[in-house]
Amino acid sequence: MILPQISHLVSICAKSGVTQAILSPGSRCAPLSLAFIRHPNIHCRTISDERSAAFMALGMAQQLNKPVVLVCTSGSATLNYGPAIAEAFYQQIPLLILTADRPAEWIDQWDGQTIRQQDIYAPHIKGSFTFPDDANPTDKLWHAKRIVKEAIVLAKAFPSGPVHINIPLREPFYPAPGENYNFEITDMEPVLDVETGSYALREEVRQKLKNQLSGFKRILLLPGQQKPNLKIKRLLEEIVQNQKGLLVTDVTSNMAQPLAIVHHDFFAAEVSKDKEMVPDLLISFGKSILSKSLKQSLRNCPMSHWHVQPEGSVPDPFQHLDQIIRLQPEIFLEFLLKEGPEIDPVFGQAWKDKNEIVKTQLPQMLNGASFGELKSLSHILHALPAAGKVHLANSMAVRNVNFLGLSQDKIEIICNRGTSGIDGSNSTAVGCTFTTKELVTLITGDLAFFYDRNAFWHQYNMSNLRIILFNNHGGGIFRMIDGPSNLPELEEYFETRQRLNARLLAREMGFEYTLVKSMPGLKKGLADFFQDSIKPKIIEIESSSELNSRVLKSFRRKIKARISKKE
Amino acid sequence: MILPQISHLVSICAKSGVTQAILSPGSRCAPLSLAFIRHPNIHCRTISDERSAAFMALGMAQQLNKPVVLVCTSGSATLNYGPAIAEAFYQQIPLLILTADRPAEWIDQWDGQTIRQQDIYAPHIKGSFTFPDDANPTDKLWHAKRIVKEAIVLAKAFPSGPVHINIPLREPFYPAPGENYNFEITDMEPVLDVETGSYALREEVRQKLKNQLSGFKRILLLPGQQKPNLKIKRLLEEIVQNQKGLLVTDVTSNMAQPLAIVHHDFFAAEVSKDKEMVPDLLISFGKSILSKSLKQSLRNCPMSHWHVQPEGSVPDPFQHLDQIIRLQPEIFLEFLLKEGPEIDPVFGQAWKDKNEIVKTQLPQMLNGASFGELKSLSHILHALPAAGKVHLANSMAVRNVNFLGLSQDKIEIICNRGTSGIDGSNSTAVGCTFTTKELVTLITGDLAFFYDRNAFWHQYNMSNLRIILFNNHGGGIFRMIDGPSNLPELEEYFETRQRLNARLLAREMGFEYTLVKSMPGLKKGLADFFQDSIKPKIIEIESSSELNSRVLKSFRRKIKARISKKE
Repeated sequence: MILPQISHLVSICAKSGVTQAILSPGSRCAPLSLAFIRHPNIHCRTISDERSAAFMALGMAQQLNKPVVLVCTSGSATLNYGPAIAEAFYQQIPLLILTADRPAEWIDQWDGQTIRQQDIYAPHIKGSFTFPDDANPTDKLWHAKRIVKEAIVLAKAFPSGPVHINIPLREPFYPAPGENYNFEITDMEPVLDVETGSYALREEVRQKLKNQLSGFKRILLLPGQQKPNLKIKRLLEEIVQNQKGLLVTDVTSNMAQPLAIVHHDFFAAEVSKDKEMVPDLLISFGKSILSKSLKQSLRNCPMSHWHVQPEGSVPDPFQHLDQIIRLQPEIFLEFLLKEGPEIDPVFGQAWKDKNEIVKTQLPQMLNGASFGELKSLSHILHALPAAGKVHLANSMAVRNVNFLGLSQDKIEIICNRGTSGIDGSNSTAVGCTFTTKELVTLITGDLAFFYDRNAFWHQYNMSNLRIILFNNHGGGIFRMIDGPSNLPELEEYFETRQRLNARLLAREMGFEYTLVKSMPGLKKGLADFFQDSIKPKIIEIESSSELNSRVLKSFRRKIKARISKKE
Repeated sequence: MILPQISHLVSICAKSGVTQAILSPGSRCAPLSLAFIRHPNIHCRTISDERSAAFMALGMAQQLNKPVVLVCTSGSATLNYGPAIAEAFYQQIPLLILTADRPAEWIDQWDGQTIRQQDIYAPHIKGSFTFPDDANPTDKLWHAKRIVKEAIVLAKAFPSGPVHINIPLREPFYPAPGENYNFEITDMEPVLDVETGSYALREEVRQKLKNQLSGFKRILLLPGQQKPNLKIKRLLEEIVQNQKGLLVTDVTSNMAQPLAIVHHDFFAAEVSKDKEMVPDLLISFGKSILSKSLKQSLRNCPMSHWHVQPEGSVPDPFQHLDQIIRLQPEIFLEFLLKEGPEIDPVFGQAWKDKNEIVKTQLPQMLNGASFGELKSLSHILHALPAAGKVHLANSMAVRNVNFLGLSQDKIEIICNRGTSGIDGSNSTAVGCTFTTKELVTLITGDLAFFYDRNAFWHQYNMSNLRIILFNNHGGGIFRMIDGPSNLPELEEYFETRQRLNARLLAREMGFEYTLVKSMPGLKKGLADFFQDSIKPKIIEIESSSELNSRVLKSFRRKIKARISKKE
């Protein structure tokens, strides 16, 4: 039986601009799935593992900047969405999660696939709704339509995020013979639009901020994780050129550029100790910062911290937040460019000198290093196409890329830094391939890669996916940090040594596969790796976790020595 | 730095009888993991995928009947436990879940792997505690110890279930050089014991129930899912022999026996229509019933329903619950045997006749059927060793075994019917192998099997695992139910056709593997399948989903015809 509230739900989604849905199989959710499948303007894919399904939807919504729909059946299926929903919540990505449910009277009555789904994603959800279980009386139908409109508005509103509608459904679930969906039902129905004014800088505030700014001489600009934004990038460039601030960028900020400090991870510990480097004002916008050492060092700096963000709660990651500026970052940066004071050249130079040392030393050290993760990664980063998407998995992949920096200007860096889990990198990258014809390159380690292998368990086209897999057969990060690296438990319990490589997985999933164990092998493997192809491709770089850790530690030691010598 | 509250936590667990922990890798959880690893009386394993880890712990606790500890790091790792925790909640399996967390001041401050973990498993958890973040002052240490004792008592108390302690931890996470755990710290500390009296039948209640019972003539005993219990099984046998009730058993009840009705799934729809079959009193104990058709038919019967359960909430799956009896089932069954009225022989005979028709017809139909799931499953069920554990995956595997019945008396049937998900069958079976030297046979379909393939991604011994994989390359159940089987969307969106078979997985994981496509192949494959071996083994039976569905439907049709003819 076709339910009018479900036809409306799907039509309102389509009218509100939803174009993509990821479904997972089930019977309870059949009325929802069928309606989405049959709607002419919504493209559906079915993914069996709901954990992967949700990360794929996230990967799509990251690119589309609008809600992607998720549909799953009742029971524990819904809980498998949990990790991706938390990631979407912290990464502020709009998802519309539709879970089929038993009607209220059957909860806790030992029926199959029945759990307590009300508010199941709390507290990592922007809103949770319960759909009416009937379209009669008409107030219930209005309630249903209102919920859908409200949920979509809420998912999109800044800071955007995941919204959940739990949908109790009674049998029969399937259309009767000859019964067809009537999506025109919603034609006359207005959907809910939102027009948002943008904050402008009122004259008195402008004066006040200008006065405050004039008291600072060492202004550090630190953009957090965000989508590429050419306007902001150019503004930052102008600000640096005009000595109105010093720019420090992690790769995840998508704001890296020639004038920015990018190798701070190698010398961040110095910042709070070297009075020439200590900022007196930190200006941030966007989301989280990648470099833990920079974050910790800034916490020890006596400074003001201004965060620019138009809406939503503002955290205090550096323990010095003293001003929230409710503006679009562009507007504030334009003001800073125009009205900000010139910074102390000694401050800027202190950072640039150190950045320059790393920049000069790195290629030499990489040249001299044995084959391993850093050396091969550096080669790969230079070989990346000029444009495209690069998804970096947690945790060593994104860190290593941040150490080395990336020079291509038109590459978008994506990374699940909302919760920084390893649980959905593959699926997020796969979701990304569903939205673009550009190459999507996933750079990952073996734990993240095998953890989320169900990302590839489907038959949808992802021929523009390229995977660089650094396989050191364990969680390499545990060898990098001092605590566990000397413990007898290191290999079994921290690194969790695992012996898989990706050869069989590639065969199973129909990927092109190259195993690389040397620089000549890597060069050969990369020769046509980024060329078009029908199949996705994997280059697997096997290296020794012990050696990788030795190399990175020696790099750090050498650079530290070089920097102290300079002083 | 070793924290005294963590040493106490682990010591109290050990003193309270905890012997097994499943850890997942992480740095935030290192103080917990190390303490468990180093405790001499707790056996630890590390599993990278937390979703699998939690189902493994569940599979272990199912067997051990005492809490198994789970330890994971902060962030989305914790959410990957969600599906198994809901299953444990509804299946009433004790788990002690320990999640490492940032201290409160760092929540929502854009730190890595930081989410809102407080009460994260609500509402599918028996209790949630927040561990103190320090052992000073001593009241905080006492608080920590009290929480651990209380959590263990709560997890074990009937109906047992999962309990969560969220544990905020500050750096440093690792012991200083030379620092050792002092587990003797707890030697003088009493742990919390609970002595529970058992309900007895007071004389006046006995008289009242006896009077009530005397009014019933058609008493149906329907045990729900439960662990094997020889005493109850023998009592049920005596009750049937003495005509004090009719026994109907699903395989998941572990109460099947020669005198029980076991083929009810083939004729359950008749029950409410045939007045000779309608019970006037249904007596149940244990948890859920597998057969949906029986459940639905009983809902249409005018009857009383008594449920025997010493504690906890009691659902009403048949919509006729009118008496809850707070007793151990044994005590009630002894009373029923002694004081219950003799049932109407016409009632008993009506069920037995129909059961007998199926019992006689099935072997003939199976003999005549083409090779496929039912035919091969029947052969396998007869070939199973006399004793051992059999884990049945949702959803067709457990249904098919229930259709065919199982004759071995000493096999324990295990199935995740708490939430009836497909998400953790492999892992639960693997967890079971960690607790026994007996053979553990997993009977599963391809969707459940590949969904949870990370169950095998570790290096621990599971040589007593045998897997029977029915691969029809999709979710066969959707072809069985009327709604979707005729839809154009069937294959892509409901069955979710998938092309994998297990050959490469078996090679990857080091399993012995046999592919079977015919009866002679199956017989050959089974020849030494249940023999001891160093490696786990898989028999994969490839069959056509379309054919399987045709066979099952024709069986049902023929049996229905035979039964109506008889009437």
